[in-house]
Amino acid sequence: MNDPRPLRTLAVGLGPIGIAATRLALSRRSLAVVGAVDLDPAKEGAELASLVNADGGAGAASRAHNDGAVHVERDLERALDRLAPDLVLLCTSSFLPAVRADLLRCAARGVDVVSSCEELLFPALQHPDMAAEIDEAARQGGASILGTGVNPGFILDFVPVIASAVAYDVTGVRGVRVVDAGKRRLPLQKKVGAAMTEREFRDLVAQGKLGHIGMRESVALVGRALGLELEDVAQTVAPVIATEERRTPFLTVAPGAVAGIHNRGIGRSGGRTVVELDLKMFVGALDPRDEIFLDGDPPVHLRFEGGIFGDSATAAILVNSARQVVDARPGLLTVLDIAPPRLAR
Amino acid sequence: MNDPRPLRTLAVGLGPIGIAATRLALSRRSLAVVGAVDLDPAKEGAELASLVNADGGAGAASRAHNDGAVHVERDLERALDRLAPDLVLLCTSSFLPAVRADLLRCAARGVDVVSSCEELLFPALQHPDMAAEIDEAARQGGASILGTGVNPGFILDFVPVIASAVAYDVTGVRGVRVVDAGKRRLPLQKKVGAAMTEREFRDLVAQGKLGHIGMRESVALVGRALGLELEDVAQTVAPVIATEERRTPFLTVAPGAVAGIHNRGIGRSGGRTVVELDLKMFVGALDPRDEIFLDGDPPVHLRFEGGIFGDSATAAILVNSARQVVDARPGLLTVLDIAPPRLAR
Repeated sequence: MNDPRPLRTLAVGLGPIGIAATRLALSRRSLAVVGAVDLDPAKEGAELASLVNADGGAGAASRAHNDGAVHVERDLERALDRLAPDLVLLCTSSFLPAVRADLLRCAARGVDVVSSCEELLFPALQHPDMAAEIDEAARQGGASILGTGVNPGFILDFVPVIASAVAYDVTGVRGVRVVDAGKRRLPLQKKVGAAMTEREFRDLVAQGKLGHIGMRESVALVGRALGLELEDVAQTVAPVIATEERRTPFLTVAPGAVAGIHNRGIGRSGGRTVVELDLKMFVGALDPRDEIFLDGDPPVHLRFEGGIFGDSATAAILVNSARQVVDARPGLLTVLDIAPPRLAR
Repeated sequence: MNDPRPLRTLAVGLGPIGIAATRLALSRRSLAVVGAVDLDPAKEGAELASLVNADGGAGAASRAHNDGAVHVERDLERALDRLAPDLVLLCTSSFLPAVRADLLRCAARGVDVVSSCEELLFPALQHPDMAAEIDEAARQGGASILGTGVNPGFILDFVPVIASAVAYDVTGVRGVRVVDAGKRRLPLQKKVGAAMTEREFRDLVAQGKLGHIGMRESVALVGRALGLELEDVAQTVAPVIATEERRTPFLTVAPGAVAGIHNRGIGRSGGRTVVELDLKMFVGALDPRDEIFLDGDPPVHLRFEGGIFGDSATAAILVNSARQVVDARPGLLTVLDIAPPRLAR
């Protein structure tokens, strides 16, 4: 808890999450953003501070130790070799196969990674061989690699597991997250399918182009961490249909159209559902909240009033986990393997 | 998260908390209780399983790897040298000076320690020299030492710090714990002063014989972990006076008598209160709960409905932190330095 030197951080991936996390990192004295990488040719050579501020950020982007102007480059290996950073903030994709090569590049150089890649929360669920390969490379190279975020990464997985600390036994876990998408940015409203027809929604879900990524990873992590011995992890994705007209600053949802998404993750043990994570994000949702119920001895019921605001929370958790990842043992880690995240100044 | 061999555990201190933690440890396949130490001559030579079960515990006290009968002994050093345990579960005192010698004995032998000692949550607050001595000995000997519990150790310190993971900034922390002492054991009702006169209560507080230990340690830990730069940590202890008669299964509180205790911990920075932890434990308390409010960006409001049941929770957290302490680096650690606690099977 002392004040060690700032972590020399390389920002990789400057989409909305990467921009938000980088903007926050630039404002922290515990981190120094020394470089930035993005594949988009339109961003190449751009000054990081202006890119970050153009995206609507607060003016906190310049601090003494970030004075040297950082320009966006395209080649990760070259940036890693030139800068030898302590940490990569990797926000390029939700899917493990798409981040595998970059993780191996970092692992080979012993550079620690915090990533928003949703599948990286529990990569062994869908990609066991790839997870083993990355873990082995990270151990060999002396790199600690973590996937985290607010969901997955905190609300529906980390929090219920931590709540079990006060229990003698846990026989079941239920998590409920309700988000009023009407109070969020347009990209989130689009992501949940607001204003689509039910047919459009179902087509996009079938194509894997709509929906929340990482739900099954949350279920698997909870099951593993609490010793629930899941034999089966599944999910359902369904539309929430509007029963009355709903207007947001960006769009209007007509009655009968899709207001948003209902995503359930289910973990079964002995034929019984023992983990149920229920996520509803739709325009007009009442009583937005995050709630965790542990069945057990004693039962535990935990509630974040109003819910955790997701737009900023993932950026926050990435930055607020950085020091803990750097301090952790090498390997492919989970949010339960490192010291817990907390506000980084 | 694999299934390593059970931690060979030595139970030290068989008062109510030690008994509860030992009973739980005996029921876990991840721990093997290989010895027990208590200074009470009446307990010397007693069989641990019967001692634990006589205290009203469930029948889970015998498991295959605990088959060898454990008898209570008095000499800690002899037990450490004979058994060479992985872990000591230390539940002898709330105060650092009273556990110092035993911690040094464990540290010298490289034996990790999880303790319910309240001052050990943040020992540098009241005993900086002793904390440095123990830390140095633990590093030298290769031992990891942790003080934890439900309060201090979880509700009013660990939880608010973890909640800050989703935040860009935290400017203030308020914690509220309300316990209906009428629903708890007689020792807890006595500990909070129920049925005393206000005069008796104040005399005992002045003598340091009444009240919650560890409140200031919670404030200090929160302040340090969130970078709030506290210049001052203080507490107040006051009686809650009954306005009507209250009966518990054990005692009756008359109107005008003490129903329980109100303990406030305050941390100030720049002349302003930035941490306020408010604990009320009294007979007849309405709306028992644990609540955390973070002022900041964004604000966070978290609530454990009904409150966390304290009698069992401290025993649970001690056992549910064991593996994480053994896996941690050597030294005098805080609950924020290790992987977070979770249900141990």
